[in-house]
Amino acid sequence: MDSAASYDPQALRDRAAQLIANVRELSQLGWTPATSSNFSARLDAGHAAITVSGRDKGRLVEDDIMVVDFDGRAVGSAHRPSAETLLHTQLYRRFDDVGCILHTHSRHQTVASRLFAGPGHVRLEGYELLKAFRGNETHETAIDVPVLPNSQHMPTLAAQVDALLDRGPMWGYLIDGHGLYAWGRDMAEARRHLEAFDFLLGCELEIRRLAVAR
Amino acid sequence: MDSAASYDPQALRDRAAQLIANVRELSQLGWTPATSSNFSARLDAGHAAITVSGRDKGRLVEDDIMVVDFDGRAVGSAHRPSAETLLHTQLYRRFDDVGCILHTHSRHQTVASRLFAGPGHVRLEGYELLKAFRGNETHETAIDVPVLPNSQHMPTLAAQVDALLDRGPMWGYLIDGHGLYAWGRDMAEARRHLEAFDFLLGCELEIRRLAVAR
Amino acid sequence: MDSAASYDPQALRDRAAQLIANVRELSQLGWTPATSSNFSARLDAGHAAITVSGRDKGRLVEDDIMVVDFDGRAVGSAHRPSAETLLHTQLYRRFDDVGCILHTHSRHQTVASRLFAGPGHVRLEGYELLKAFRGNETHETAIDVPVLPNSQHMPTLAAQVDALLDRGPMWGYLIDGHGLYAWGRDMAEARRHLEAFDFLLGCELEIRRLAVAR
Amino acid sequence: MDSAASYDPQALRDRAAQLIANVRELSQLGWTPATSSNFSARLDAGHAAITVSGRDKGRLVEDDIMVVDFDGRAVGSAHRPSAETLLHTQLYRRFDDVGCILHTHSRHQTVASRLFAGPGHVRLEGYELLKAFRGNETHETAIDVPVLPNSQHMPTLAAQVDALLDRGPMWGYLIDGHGLYAWGRDMAEARRHLEAFDFLLGCELEIRRLAVAR
Repeated sequence: MDSAASYDPQALRDRAAQLIANVRELSQLGWTPATSSNFSARLDAGHAAITVSGRDKGRLVEDDIMVVDFDGRAVGSAHRPSAETLLHTQLYRRFDDVGCILHTHSRHQTVASRLFAGPGHVRLEGYELLKAFRGNETHETAIDVPVLPNSQHMPTLAAQVDALLDRGPMWGYLIDGHGLYAWGRDMAEARRHLEAFDFLLGCELEIRRLAVAR
Repeated sequence: MDSAASYDPQALRDRAAQLIANVRELSQLGWTPATSSNFSARLDAGHAAITVSGRDKGRLVEDDIMVVDFDGRAVGSAHRPSAETLLHTQLYRRFDDVGCILHTHSRHQTVASRLFAGPGHVRLEGYELLKAFRGNETHETAIDVPVLPNSQHMPTLAAQVDALLDRGPMWGYLIDGHGLYAWGRDMAEARRHLEAFDFLLGCELEIRRLAVAR
Repeated sequence: MDSAASYDPQALRDRAAQLIANVRELSQLGWTPATSSNFSARLDAGHAAITVSGRDKGRLVEDDIMVVDFDGRAVGSAHRPSAETLLHTQLYRRFDDVGCILHTHSRHQTVASRLFAGPGHVRLEGYELLKAFRGNETHETAIDVPVLPNSQHMPTLAAQVDALLDRGPMWGYLIDGHGLYAWGRDMAEARRHLEAFDFLLGCELEIRRLAVAR
Repeated sequence: MDSAASYDPQALRDRAAQLIANVRELSQLGWTPATSSNFSARLDAGHAAITVSGRDKGRLVEDDIMVVDFDGRAVGSAHRPSAETLLHTQLYRRFDDVGCILHTHSRHQTVASRLFAGPGHVRLEGYELLKAFRGNETHETAIDVPVLPNSQHMPTLAAQVDALLDRGPMWGYLIDGHGLYAWGRDMAEARRHLEAFDFLLGCELEIRRLAVAR
């Protein structure tokens, strides 16, 4: 499982090109400040392509994408994967139909995570855009976006995510002072979920600001 | 009325190109998050070109534009039109001089719709930009932008819109938690109305935020 | 004074190209919503190039720039100049060293004009960027940006501007609910003044919002 | 030490190209309004390349970059260096491993500097992005960004900066009503620090706005 031959190199090139193009767009929105954030796409039942830690996300090149197995170990690469790789691989391992994971640090995401760390979730309710999340057919629903306490110990975070996933379907979570993880079956769905989370968190913050003025 | 021959294919190509170019610009403003929003242009007295539901509005291609008749049925296309198509066709059917309809989900629009859902309208008053709306020659006027309750049942929404139109001329309305519909004689006028609504809603929200600080 | 021969056609082409390029950039900042705003540059001691009213400022072409004399009459053009042309020509007529006038409608400008219409000016004080205004060598100064009541009667506005100019040098003013006029010796200085006004008005609004939270 | 031969002209061309490209990006973010801000990169043990004062930072060309020695004197150039050059050269002189200094005027920076001028620092605490600063391995830390009183007398500012540097490592400071200085070993690190400061100052301002609404 640790040789480059264990995955399809063409699949890697395809996913790398897709990650580079999409991450550049997210970077232009200001969602990856100061080389933060990381992004991955499934290659097969045992491997994912993931961004190398510390690179400028607005200027990724093919060499900034590496392969990991679902234990988070580098495959066919001298790069050391980011500590947060575990938060990606736990989802690929658990769900066959997760194909792409996007972790960003927009200001809405970071501020919402700080503001709602106490209650431990942000409730999103009454928005048409709730229909952007897979499985929702109406705006007459609500979702609670979990906010986890931040930790530099990834197994602790991963265990909390697993406990949340045991309770039902979800498409993303916040980490306090940190940012958002969002995912989907493929890049298109993961981006749709990411954009919907960010837009709705931004609306919630704005409504909260305006509420005092009513 | 259900064959491709019933409309001018060159008119379709022209309108499709215009929709694609303009919608890309609106998307770059962040007004179409998470594949939301829809857009249409009149082809003739019985047909309109409209965006296919669920496509990424920043990357539309010709195949993402379909034709509907004014009952909202697909014409010469296997795509199923969006449920919201009815909110477009009711305007084309009712007004010969409506040539373009733009429905977007900017944050200003969504937040204003939530904040003013109670009173049922947003009053815009005292702005020079009120002259951007067809028929206004002075800033010494006011317009009330209606805010409709959201519903997944389009005939209900369409009936409410018709009732508002019975009361007098209007160039757009909000739906609670959802976004804005704006229209005009052609793309240029519809965009001018859309931009004026969004700008003035943004000003109103900002003034409201600042009012507490006075 | 009403023939095309009365000004240098090459000067017109040069100014038109400069206006088109600069106005496109201002438009991309969102400062010219809904075809609003107008822009001019001096051609000689009796003529200025000015944008034709109602054009989309993000897509100007050479035909969207016309020539007026300093009475505001069209020269060598069938276009009718905008009513606001008088607010441009009064400055060219009064000051030999005014070479460029930029009138925009950013949200900061419009909101500040509404908020400070009562006191009739916005005080800008203690900012390093005050040095961006011609003649200022230190941040230890203050300038009061006038806010005029809006009017559709241009001679009334022009008379108020003249009265302000009698009191001392100034590089711009706001009109309530409307936007900002800024000028300079040439395009570079006019843009520097415009950007400084917009930036500092934005800071003032932000500080006011934050003041309640202290 | 005052002849053009005293530095490597190829190193100058390289640094100039890097400065031009990076400053254009910072300008597009709106962080260099009204020709403000200045930027430099070390050439060798006695020289730095620095932007000429008063140029439009979105359109820099090679001629807008000059060389200074670490006393702030122009080398091989008729341009007069900006008064603020001293705030650059004091860092190059003091720290062999400072390779790049970025001074910008974003709205977040300017507003934060005004708001926190009283306490004299902005505390940044509990953010994952604190790890973007060299030497930080965890978010469980805090940094105090100093806010210096503004002065047109650069030796006064430089002495205050030196006193702060005597107390421990730091990667940037604010000047009241003015903007931010940030630096690093090279352009990549200086930009990472600059982006982290700006992002976290923006989060602090936003949280402060929202705090009143809780």
